[in-house]
Amino acid sequence: MSRSALIVIDMLNTYSHPDAEHLIPSVREALPHIVGLIERARDGGVPVIYVNDNFGEWRSHHGEIIETTLAGPHRGLVEPVLPDSDSLFVVKARHSIFYETPLSYLLSQLDVNRVVLCGQVTEQCVLYSALDAHIRHLDVTVPDDAVAHIHQDLAHASLRLMERNMNASIRKAASVEF
Amino acid sequence: MSRSALIVIDMLNTYSHPDAEHLIPSVREALPHIVGLIERARDGGVPVIYVNDNFGEWRSHHGEIIETTLAGPHRGLVEPVLPDSDSLFVVKARHSIFYETPLSYLLSQLDVNRVVLCGQVTEQCVLYSALDAHIRHLDVTVPDDAVAHIHQDLAHASLRLMERNMNASIRKAASVEF
Amino acid sequence: MSRSALIVIDMLNTYSHPDAEHLIPSVREALPHIVGLIERARDGGVPVIYVNDNFGEWRSHHGEIIETTLAGPHRGLVEPVLPDSDSLFVVKARHSIFYETPLSYLLSQLDVNRVVLCGQVTEQCVLYSALDAHIRHLDVTVPDDAVAHIHQDLAHASLRLMERNMNASIRKAASVEF
Amino acid sequence: MSRSALIVIDMLNTYSHPDAEHLIPSVREALPHIVGLIERARDGGVPVIYVNDNFGEWRSHHGEIIETTLAGPHRGLVEPVLPDSDSLFVVKARHSIFYETPLSYLLSQLDVNRVVLCGQVTEQCVLYSALDAHIRHLDVTVPDDAVAHIHQDLAHASLRLMERNMNASIRKAASVEF
Repeated sequence: MSRSALIVIDMLNTYSHPDAEHLIPSVREALPHIVGLIERARDGGVPVIYVNDNFGEWRSHHGEIIETTLAGPHRGLVEPVLPDSDSLFVVKARHSIFYETPLSYLLSQLDVNRVVLCGQVTEQCVLYSALDAHIRHLDVTVPDDAVAHIHQDLAHASLRLMERNMNASIRKAASVEF
Repeated sequence: MSRSALIVIDMLNTYSHPDAEHLIPSVREALPHIVGLIERARDGGVPVIYVNDNFGEWRSHHGEIIETTLAGPHRGLVEPVLPDSDSLFVVKARHSIFYETPLSYLLSQLDVNRVVLCGQVTEQCVLYSALDAHIRHLDVTVPDDAVAHIHQDLAHASLRLMERNMNASIRKAASVEF
Repeated sequence: MSRSALIVIDMLNTYSHPDAEHLIPSVREALPHIVGLIERARDGGVPVIYVNDNFGEWRSHHGEIIETTLAGPHRGLVEPVLPDSDSLFVVKARHSIFYETPLSYLLSQLDVNRVVLCGQVTEQCVLYSALDAHIRHLDVTVPDDAVAHIHQDLAHASLRLMERNMNASIRKAASVEF
Repeated sequence: MSRSALIVIDMLNTYSHPDAEHLIPSVREALPHIVGLIERARDGGVPVIYVNDNFGEWRSHHGEIIETTLAGPHRGLVEPVLPDSDSLFVVKARHSIFYETPLSYLLSQLDVNRVVLCGQVTEQCVLYSALDAHIRHLDVTVPDDAVAHIHQDLAHASLRLMERNMNASIRKAASVEF
């Protein structure tokens, strides 16, 4: 039987990096779909796991990732997707959600064998994470309207790579079943 | 040139596990030496990195590891070694400080090539971490009066294993130079 | 200073998998460029490292990978790029050349900090390997006429992903300097 | 249900390293028990997997590990435990049988969830491998008369560490059931 988790990638973001201007419009479009997935997962008792860069800060005991992102000019992109008290949280260094993080241990503790990936950036961390999930024998679903990109053409190619070579199910957020 | 970091292992602890009664007296003895190392590291601008289990909780955005340990009956073993605002913090799943954690990424960002390991448990996480540090080509120093054990004989053997097979420098905390 | 290694990926192949018919014409085109790179690397004393799937066989003590590929109908695609007595050889499970292989250990022993990737498949193992090399702080060069693909459009997108997001140098084989 | 594999660690050895004189007598004692385990595993259709250092050589396509060890003065310690045509073979860099090797992938392909570890060195690679197997949720059995040591006291302590902290079953080779 399939047990799913919803993974929210890098949505706690200050949007202060060089490519942010290209990313922000795409985040705006994806945001309601991500919110919808989070709500449905919470309602259904599906684990919601935030996996997030820490912007080079390593003081996660201060909750400073959230504070930092809420203090910036793009608070409006962060607030709708904040973790609640049941959310799980894993800090990643950069790149994949799995690379040198305890995520696969956490998933095995939760008996999860399928991950639904949403967030950003489609052609970077989402792509790498789909690969690393597939290597680890997890089923992967990526709702293509709930991931945000910097370059549309690379994002499109990345989704096709995930579908063809990483056995990912690419679909609309509304049609994702948990 | 050698750049060091002080690693404080699993000292944020509720001491509620089965072996705690054997561990606590050893922690009490090690505590002042650990405090001394932390103070000297802070004074010298040496990075102090807490690497800690999260007791199966994955809500590090709530700072709940610290709250949980301070709320328990062994607050006195935790308070003297609390992280300050400059401390770095890495959550581990269990076992080694390196296994599926971003620690080696963090160390490489800090240009650290030598780790000084203190904390607990000598014959478990400290041993495994010394091994993993050695495999990763880091120099390892373990002050034997600043690590706490459950079983004295296994701890003693573990320190000899570290010295002989993992090239660790075993010495007293007071003689550790940063 | 930069020390390079040439990595020859999955060129010891039986070409018996489902997509082989799409792959073979591309391999035929890439082959002379791969041969050229291998020759120049050998002449220049640059390590040539074969990293290869073992087709589910795990008896590398029998040299059976090479025997198997030479016994098949596509011997002509294998013979020109056979390892010589100085070649190094690493067996991979599947996917990336780094994932659960001793390659990064071998590279560190050789003091290599730059890998030149050639072979197959551009949009699969080459892409994943470029990512894993980049994560490990290695410089990456991919000669785009010395890698073979199954799907041209995905290969093209993969090369752009490598260039843009993995800091890879994409160039012609003839212009690669070791 | 439990499916086992027998893992033969570092028995293809030239015994030319500094500690060899301390190791050889212990190998001599363990040898008949290792041979017995291999025979019983082969008879029972249990996978026998050799995991072996390559002494800094990376030309496994030449079968040179076996040739090298047979050419040395300690051929008598190698010949009785040579792989046969059904044996599986994984090259490791050094340290654990799992660290940067495809072993866990191979075990998952074979549906193995229990490893029986024999070979050398008890207080080094066998200890590290037991730890890494335990971390990966595999059951571990170590027949203490089929592993060889350099230092008896460290070996003894290592076996106790495996039993107590890595949940290993420590027993005589004759009583190991596959």
